[in-house]
Amino acid sequence: MKLLSLARDLQRRKARERQHRFVAEGVRTVEALLASGLPVDGMLVTAALREQARGRALMEAAEGRGIAVADVSDAELESAADTDTPQGVLAVAPIPERSLRAPEGAASRFLVLDALQDPGNVGTVIRTAAALGVTATVALPGTVDLWNAKVVRSTMGALFVHPALPMSWEAFADFAATHAVPVWAADTDGVPLDQVTTASLPAHLALVVSNEGAGLSAQLSAAVTSRVAIRMAPGIESLNVAVATGILLHALRVE
Amino acid sequence: MKLLSLARDLQRRKARERQHRFVAEGVRTVEALLASGLPVDGMLVTAALREQARGRALMEAAEGRGIAVADVSDAELESAADTDTPQGVLAVAPIPERSLRAPEGAASRFLVLDALQDPGNVGTVIRTAAALGVTATVALPGTVDLWNAKVVRSTMGALFVHPALPMSWEAFADFAATHAVPVWAADTDGVPLDQVTTASLPAHLALVVSNEGAGLSAQLSAAVTSRVAIRMAPGIESLNVAVATGILLHALRVE
Repeated sequence: MKLLSLARDLQRRKARERQHRFVAEGVRTVEALLASGLPVDGMLVTAALREQARGRALMEAAEGRGIAVADVSDAELESAADTDTPQGVLAVAPIPERSLRAPEGAASRFLVLDALQDPGNVGTVIRTAAALGVTATVALPGTVDLWNAKVVRSTMGALFVHPALPMSWEAFADFAATHAVPVWAADTDGVPLDQVTTASLPAHLALVVSNEGAGLSAQLSAAVTSRVAIRMAPGIESLNVAVATGILLHALRVE
Repeated sequence: MKLLSLARDLQRRKARERQHRFVAEGVRTVEALLASGLPVDGMLVTAALREQARGRALMEAAEGRGIAVADVSDAELESAADTDTPQGVLAVAPIPERSLRAPEGAASRFLVLDALQDPGNVGTVIRTAAALGVTATVALPGTVDLWNAKVVRSTMGALFVHPALPMSWEAFADFAATHAVPVWAADTDGVPLDQVTTASLPAHLALVVSNEGAGLSAQLSAAVTSRVAIRMAPGIESLNVAVATGILLHALRVE
């Protein structure tokens, strides 16, 4: 079965990059994929999916859009799934082609992920960026593949609608320079957020968040114009990166 | 072996409640437990732990405090561990006895967890509360056991130093009434945070965060005097509860 072999193959990053495709698994994620209007190659479903009303609705939605739906056994589905319980459904879809658009409107916020490796954290960060009105999220090299199944799942559908894309630091630095977007970074040695006044916030802004502990690369460091910190209670080392990103994006929001 | 059987038994909530003990696993968590100064019954270690300098340092720290260290096989350690990779060490310790103290100082913040069930989220919420200077965190019934191994691990040691404790709603409502602490709740239909001015923040405040979707119970609802919301971009349903709690606690901070 062609779609099943493709889905199995897409568990590897190299295959996703070669095929320009990814796998979405689980009822909620596949629902969000269909709702996003992104093209979908096909779906693999098991008998269990037909037993629940929500599963049948999902299959009808797929068939209504002319998406191929193939029946597979539980064991076959599991062989292509990242989770132990893929809930009877996975979909294969092309990775959307995305590029950064020039900042527009009264204000915009870009989020830049510097070598964030945990897929669950990266998914939650993207979900957070989408919820807080970020224009686009850039994944620098060293960051986990955005189309990794666990990242996809952890975004709760946000990855299908929020423009998140991989970019080299050079390409992003070019973009920021061309459009005069200041680049700020989260840094425990930075200015505490509560000392940053709303009036001092630039209309357009990119915020870099890094891997805990690793710090910014020297190259990145040179391009950063301000560093901001979340004031922490004594004796506590750090916040979870998704929590820290949420606090920072919320405090730096202007619209 | 007594400590091994006890550790295995403590995988069940009922046993933790009966024995008033919990298990901490992994190098980082056990290091944090020792650093907290909480009493420790004993440690189980495998040969692998002795092979790394950090593991040897941990054993020396334990022995320096007179804590019993017992050697077990990999299979034995795994039989008592929650993770697949307990990193060669787990410790058994008494659950600290905690109670809420009256609010003191110029300002205080209490966090109240209403039926939060995901252990990873609850752990991250406690880590966040500790980092943002919250006075104490209360877990209402319906919330996962705070001494569940995954909660313990996800707090990154914060549970050993931050006063988090289970309480009934009645007991917490009594406390809040006695000390005139207003109770606010996170609620998507509440007043957006950016409309809450610093000047309007009470000196002492309890914030209730709930299970996404489930909403507040009627009983709790009656006691809540204000509802606050995080403004979200259209089409996005919700934030991860730990991210939302971080944003709220940061915005409602006064000290």
